[in-house]
Amino acid sequence: MMSKGKATRDQILRQATDLASVGGLEGLTIGALASHSGMSKSGLFAHFGSKEALQLAVLEAVRTEFIFEVVAPARKFTGRKRLEALSENWLAWASTNGYVGGCPFVAAAVEWDDREGPVRDAVQDALALWQSYLSRAAQQAIDAGEFRTDLDPAQFAFDAYAIELGFHNGHRLMGQTDAARWTRAAFVRLITDALAPH
Amino acid sequence: MMSKGKATRDQILRQATDLASVGGLEGLTIGALASHSGMSKSGLFAHFGSKEALQLAVLEAVRTEFIFEVVAPARKFTGRKRLEALSENWLAWASTNGYVGGCPFVAAAVEWDDREGPVRDAVQDALALWQSYLSRAAQQAIDAGEFRTDLDPAQFAFDAYAIELGFHNGHRLMGQTDAARWTRAAFVRLITDALAPH
Repeated sequence: MMSKGKATRDQILRQATDLASVGGLEGLTIGALASHSGMSKSGLFAHFGSKEALQLAVLEAVRTEFIFEVVAPARKFTGRKRLEALSENWLAWASTNGYVGGCPFVAAAVEWDDREGPVRDAVQDALALWQSYLSRAAQQAIDAGEFRTDLDPAQFAFDAYAIELGFHNGHRLMGQTDAARWTRAAFVRLITDALAPH
Repeated sequence: MMSKGKATRDQILRQATDLASVGGLEGLTIGALASHSGMSKSGLFAHFGSKEALQLAVLEAVRTEFIFEVVAPARKFTGRKRLEALSENWLAWASTNGYVGGCPFVAAAVEWDDREGPVRDAVQDALALWQSYLSRAAQQAIDAGEFRTDLDPAQFAFDAYAIELGFHNGHRLMGQTDAARWTRAAFVRLITDALAPH
């Protein structure tokens, strides 16, 4: 059973994540979270200790949810089918996830690209892990004879992540109603171009 | 001949743009620019009037430079060749442009996607214009028989912009040394897939 302290922390983290998704991780201070959640600053300090620890806890929470929603349901497949499932799961996650302001990692990646420190490292690590997961699935598809032997799996992962950034931009900033359709078509084109000749 | 007032304003704008490219447009205040440039706050107010006017002036300056560096040199070509030139010019601009912190529009697009107001509108307008420019060049290539007649030019523009976001992320946040090579290959794949069958 989940302890009360853990449940409270999870609930606060959820509010912190919403706040970060709108105002950016940089704007996620203990003070801002106190106003937003109605909790006292001292109570929040007791839970997180520092602004940076709070930011890292938010990234970790999003990462756990991402694995649960996007990665885990695709594990039953391998190679090409895994990549197709990951694309669909990712699109569903990015379209409908509860974060008011879109994926906190995409926002954090832009906010932190000029800075040093543990938050940047956490963002970079998570994105590198995601790209390497996509890359390994592409390698699996090559090994299984589904994908061309001259395919560069790292390029495949780079292209897949570019499509995800394109969706985020089209959907959130540009309000393009075709963004999901274009994203799906871009994933199909990526996978089709990777197929081994019959 | 350029007036002294205009020259001073351009010089300040350049410093403001560097500042915005690192700290984001949101962090670009008259006060921060005063510390950075060594000018008085009252002098800067005389030039720009408000924080928002300063932010809009920065976006306008970047837009002008973008047209000069990326769009104008490709105007001598049409259709497919124009798109190839735009890709190369864009990559050169994004790799080597003087902005310390990367393209201010990419950063601003993420910062402002949850907000309303003239700055968001300016960012959105500029990106919409760029995508529609790419889309029109793709339509030109269809009309000239270079590209498939069933190609969706808006999808082409969406895909091209996604590649640009992928480069920005790979180059700046991830420090991927292959980012430029992958970006070039992604543009080649985009154009190759668009070609009309012989």
